[in-house]
Amino acid sequence: MRMVDLIEKKREGKELSTEEIKFIVEGYTDGSIPDYQVSALTMAIFFKDMSDRERADLTMAMVESGDQIDLSAIEGIKVDKHSTGGVGDTTTLVLGPLVASVGVPVAKMSGRGLGHTGGTIDKLESVEGFHVEIENDEFIRLVNKNKLAVIGQSGNLTPADKKLYSLRDVTATVNSIPLIASSIMSKKIAAGADAIVLDVKTGAGAFMKTLDDSKDLAKAMVNIGNNVGRKTMAVISDMSQPLGYAIGNALEVKEAIDTLKGEGPEDLTELCLTLGSHMVFLAEKASTLEEARALLQKAIDDGSALENFKVFLESQGGDPSVVDEPSKLPQAKYKIELEAKQDGYVSEIVADAVGTAAMWLGAGRATKDSVIDLAVGLELRKKIGDEVKAGDSLATIYSNEENIDNVKEKLYESIKVTTEHVDAPTLIHTEITG
Amino acid sequence: MRMVDLIEKKREGKELSTEEIKFIVEGYTDGSIPDYQVSALTMAIFFKDMSDRERADLTMAMVESGDQIDLSAIEGIKVDKHSTGGVGDTTTLVLGPLVASVGVPVAKMSGRGLGHTGGTIDKLESVEGFHVEIENDEFIRLVNKNKLAVIGQSGNLTPADKKLYSLRDVTATVNSIPLIASSIMSKKIAAGADAIVLDVKTGAGAFMKTLDDSKDLAKAMVNIGNNVGRKTMAVISDMSQPLGYAIGNALEVKEAIDTLKGEGPEDLTELCLTLGSHMVFLAEKASTLEEARALLQKAIDDGSALENFKVFLESQGGDPSVVDEPSKLPQAKYKIELEAKQDGYVSEIVADAVGTAAMWLGAGRATKDSVIDLAVGLELRKKIGDEVKAGDSLATIYSNEENIDNVKEKLYESIKVTTEHVDAPTLIHTEITG
Repeated sequence: MRMVDLIEKKREGKELSTEEIKFIVEGYTDGSIPDYQVSALTMAIFFKDMSDRERADLTMAMVESGDQIDLSAIEGIKVDKHSTGGVGDTTTLVLGPLVASVGVPVAKMSGRGLGHTGGTIDKLESVEGFHVEIENDEFIRLVNKNKLAVIGQSGNLTPADKKLYSLRDVTATVNSIPLIASSIMSKKIAAGADAIVLDVKTGAGAFMKTLDDSKDLAKAMVNIGNNVGRKTMAVISDMSQPLGYAIGNALEVKEAIDTLKGEGPEDLTELCLTLGSHMVFLAEKASTLEEARALLQKAIDDGSALENFKVFLESQGGDPSVVDEPSKLPQAKYKIELEAKQDGYVSEIVADAVGTAAMWLGAGRATKDSVIDLAVGLELRKKIGDEVKAGDSLATIYSNEENIDNVKEKLYESIKVTTEHVDAPTLIHTEITG
Repeated sequence: MRMVDLIEKKREGKELSTEEIKFIVEGYTDGSIPDYQVSALTMAIFFKDMSDRERADLTMAMVESGDQIDLSAIEGIKVDKHSTGGVGDTTTLVLGPLVASVGVPVAKMSGRGLGHTGGTIDKLESVEGFHVEIENDEFIRLVNKNKLAVIGQSGNLTPADKKLYSLRDVTATVNSIPLIASSIMSKKIAAGADAIVLDVKTGAGAFMKTLDDSKDLAKAMVNIGNNVGRKTMAVISDMSQPLGYAIGNALEVKEAIDTLKGEGPEDLTELCLTLGSHMVFLAEKASTLEEARALLQKAIDDGSALENFKVFLESQGGDPSVVDEPSKLPQAKYKIELEAKQDGYVSEIVADAVGTAAMWLGAGRATKDSVIDLAVGLELRKKIGDEVKAGDSLATIYSNEENIDNVKEKLYESIKVTTEHVDAPTLIHTEITG
């Protein structure tokens, strides 16, 4: 088999066989196939797409390119959730304890990553003492005991995907549905998920800006999952504005606590109940979505979700008293209100730009070596459609620096107020099942 | 400027600016842009093509990536001829002395190369003593004196093209009209041509198998030439079977001599007169094509073309007496006739396969280190459309080995005889001018 022939085959729009895809992924991982051939192939895939069979084969070849997490010692169906990313997305922090509290095992492997805020681990480290450096055995034991544990990424998961993603990033081939879908799915499957709930974001602040593109990506991932024996479904949710109010590490932990208490932002609560219902359903802890949702609502109402969060934090060294006393979370030195300059209605909150403002405050990493300030960030006081009066706070800025004119300017540019009434955006557009 | 943005621009079907193309070619030549980005770009070009302006810019950027031959000390308009390659193509050997004899300066830089037979230099080295290791000054002096000289390739011509071609070869992006056309044209222009006559082959034995593809390539090259100030035209000629009779180094020299005497194969003679007329016309040595053709015919008839060949050989150390005594050329030990097995008409002579048979005899290089046997090869005795009787010779094989069953088998597979009458193929399909 010669790589050049496989590139030509794909260039001509033909289907690559299972063996051919395995040959490519193995050869790229072990270095026998060079970057320059793979980049030509990915560009050919950009133009000629891949069939459902090819996408499933590519996903599994990437899964098999490295270590795979064995979660078989955990009782029950392990359901993972994946979000395609956005700004102020606190769902992971809420969903873990929420679904765990109704008996769904959540064995979360998480990272830090670059972005507007830190990753899930960074956020959780806002709780004093909390750590994810635990042994595999302890991780498994904690999930079986509490139904929820988080461990830092270790091992050599999907090295083919890592290598391929870096290459796509510099060769203008990121934006290809079969490549995006197989990349995401390979990571979830290698991490041991039996079933997967996808939260595909759509809108200005999402990777996929249009509903059609978001649907295509969602369908692609759902098909891959189901074709490789992992029950998978997707919810397409709004990211035309940040989700919830908080953007920042400790701020999002506090928002998660509020939500687990039943006092969180409406959109975040609703999305968590929707995603959570699907997780509970796929984990076979309820026989209908309605039943699943009722279980979750009850867990919020009777405090068992919040209690699960406390136990989880304590089990990994964290101080559970923050749940009742959020002031124990890192606090910023300055709290500055961003006052509306005119009367009207909020018409736009550019999620990316708001995220960038949070990063400028120190909430996220611009490079791998950046140090995150867990205390800083912002809380929106208004969302799209809300009425405002001049002088009302549009957002509260939490900063450790006094002079934040650049951040304020950025936020004024991003949060637009018009004189005409504006409808709030639809939160959940559609659901895609296999 | 970032290469990834330029790849994306081309991927989206947009036009790259002159500066952007320069940036890419310079960066690739100096190594600051890696192979993997360039291969993604070439695949995007495969799908999205290039405009006439982009093609001209790419050509000139490749010309400027290395040395350029300065032929300004040679009097007159330097017209170069380029053939897109085929089997048994003796036109270069004939055209040099033919057009030189009517005053067109031919300053030929030539190579050895891989293929079914050697390159022009290998062929000419069949003449004892002939060599191309001459100084530049001597080369210029000889062209001014005799109107014809051949020098070996030296200097660092179009390094960008060399690098790009090697990359395309292993990334399935060879077959792209804008990339093929700019590659060929950049080499001709860097070698100092003022005007260019292209012989674009079409048919089974050519790189371009269909007339439409051949026309597209011809138009692309003619446009580039004229857009960068080099008068350029193309003849599209048949390569559904080998041109002329001879395939082999010394054998082709003998066939060239025959043709210069007016005793060559009909197709080779006609193509040389056609290409030669255009060269004479572009060199402004005749005011019409008819006049140019008459001059060339006269040069054959009165012996001046043959005389020019003798002077040329002698000026570069060769023994000119081979022209009158071709038996002084290297002779093979065995002369074996390939006898027709049945009566009928020749319906097909698969040029590629016949060329491969010649290479097996030792006429060409399979790898850079192969040693060419100048004596061996074959002479077709029949061409497509010819009637044959069982026992007639289809071809004479010149070999230095007695056991050539594999070669005979290959030739029997390649030269097909049917019972129905077959028309000879059209030799010259069309001409493309700016």
